[in-house]
Amino acid sequence: MQASEIWGERWINNALPMARTYMEVACRKQSLVCLAADRKTMAGLNELLDQVGPYLAALKTHVDLIDDWSVESWEAFCTKAKSMDLLIFEDRKFADIGKISRDQMSGVYNIRQWADLVTAHLISGQDIVDGLQAGWNDVGRNGGVLLLAQMSSRGNLLSPDYTDTVVKTGSIHDGVFGFIGNGSKPDDLKILREKVGQGKLIWTPGVNIAIGDGEMGQRYGAPDEAIRAGSDCIIVGSGIHKSEDPAKSAKSYAEISWKALLDRR
Amino acid sequence: MQASEIWGERWINNALPMARTYMEVACRKQSLVCLAADRKTMAGLNELLDQVGPYLAALKTHVDLIDDWSVESWEAFCTKAKSMDLLIFEDRKFADIGKISRDQMSGVYNIRQWADLVTAHLISGQDIVDGLQAGWNDVGRNGGVLLLAQMSSRGNLLSPDYTDTVVKTGSIHDGVFGFIGNGSKPDDLKILREKVGQGKLIWTPGVNIAIGDGEMGQRYGAPDEAIRAGSDCIIVGSGIHKSEDPAKSAKSYAEISWKALLDRR
Repeated sequence: MQASEIWGERWINNALPMARTYMEVACRKQSLVCLAADRKTMAGLNELLDQVGPYLAALKTHVDLIDDWSVESWEAFCTKAKSMDLLIFEDRKFADIGKISRDQMSGVYNIRQWADLVTAHLISGQDIVDGLQAGWNDVGRNGGVLLLAQMSSRGNLLSPDYTDTVVKTGSIHDGVFGFIGNGSKPDDLKILREKVGQGKLIWTPGVNIAIGDGEMGQRYGAPDEAIRAGSDCIIVGSGIHKSEDPAKSAKSYAEISWKALLDRR
Repeated sequence: MQASEIWGERWINNALPMARTYMEVACRKQSLVCLAADRKTMAGLNELLDQVGPYLAALKTHVDLIDDWSVESWEAFCTKAKSMDLLIFEDRKFADIGKISRDQMSGVYNIRQWADLVTAHLISGQDIVDGLQAGWNDVGRNGGVLLLAQMSSRGNLLSPDYTDTVVKTGSIHDGVFGFIGNGSKPDDLKILREKVGQGKLIWTPGVNIAIGDGEMGQRYGAPDEAIRAGSDCIIVGSGIHKSEDPAKSAKSYAEISWKALLDRR
């Protein structure tokens, strides 16, 4: 079965090359799982990748909190990730003006050269999306911007009005790959999907096979429910890397997510 | 004259060690000028510092867009900046949750080790301020967080309501040094100062001796008017580094800003 058939309206309505790349990767890997790989050492990151890479569609990184980062070790890590056919998603939360954000794609980390996806807040205005896309363009690469539409952190300022503005602006911007939503409440996610329409992708943290489990009172939603409610990728952290058998967990998340996508069609 | 006397209510009402450090530096340097040092090479940054360092109270950096950055060259640069008695202000615009932001203070750039000030958006909630302060605390250093209360970029989402929430939350948070406001309109700045009260510092871009001048239609305000309206530091970029004689320009900005502070008492 082709990606276009499996993803249906999403495929038809999102022509951003990176969006289609993701949809194809998800089909090849039979997984809608992105691992939140919040490790502070290259060894930790490599260990995770070796264990669970086969079951992932994407890997979410924070390059700027790795204490022993080097150009060479990172290049090797990214090469390995690519050989496992997964996208690299730098959760940088860009939040400056367009011109500065474009420059922040370069520098020592040179994010534009290896990241397929990045997150951005729309707080500074939509020029940030153009700036980030220009960053990729500067090195002849494609990429996609995920805008923060919702967060679950205490006291966050992404009010319903703010979310609506982000969705309204982002839904019609060519450089936007999709949105970060909250996967813990399927009903809220359905509402978000209605607002977003069928084109842009929604990626959601806040899911766990063990629903309701979570550190410090954080609540989780079920991965299959999130996908049926309109999520296109589940971002999983501790549910995989803190489990006794990360590979087995990752495989379960992949199977559940893939089955939910097929059910959703 | 003592800093406490010159800064008056601001000194009395802001006990954050880094806030008082800034007020003292400004008095020693007789300057309320922060240079926006947006250069992409270490040589460019060093050249700027050598030219205008004596006239600055602070230097605003974007460490992540310097193409030839290295641990050693940055350490030398910061040591030179400190020897010129100025604060280093990394305009990172942190915008993640508290825990991640704390970790983002480390990594290869190790911002906590050399930055005296950083910017943050309050979008993720006030835990970001605690996270950043914990970052400095992890290495036994003091620092201050400047929250984005206003931006001037096209289509930005810092609505009056958003600004009010940031000011209300930030004004009573011990870890907040102050706010980034907009220096181009003194009347708006007066309103912001009223909302902030007398404690927290307000730093303002958008000022230029040549009022109304600016790239792409950007409007500037007069530096002395900004300070009399309640700004405590003027962030100047092209007005200094694009002038024919940067040192002479920086000296003018310093003199104007210092005189305005003395007038304001």
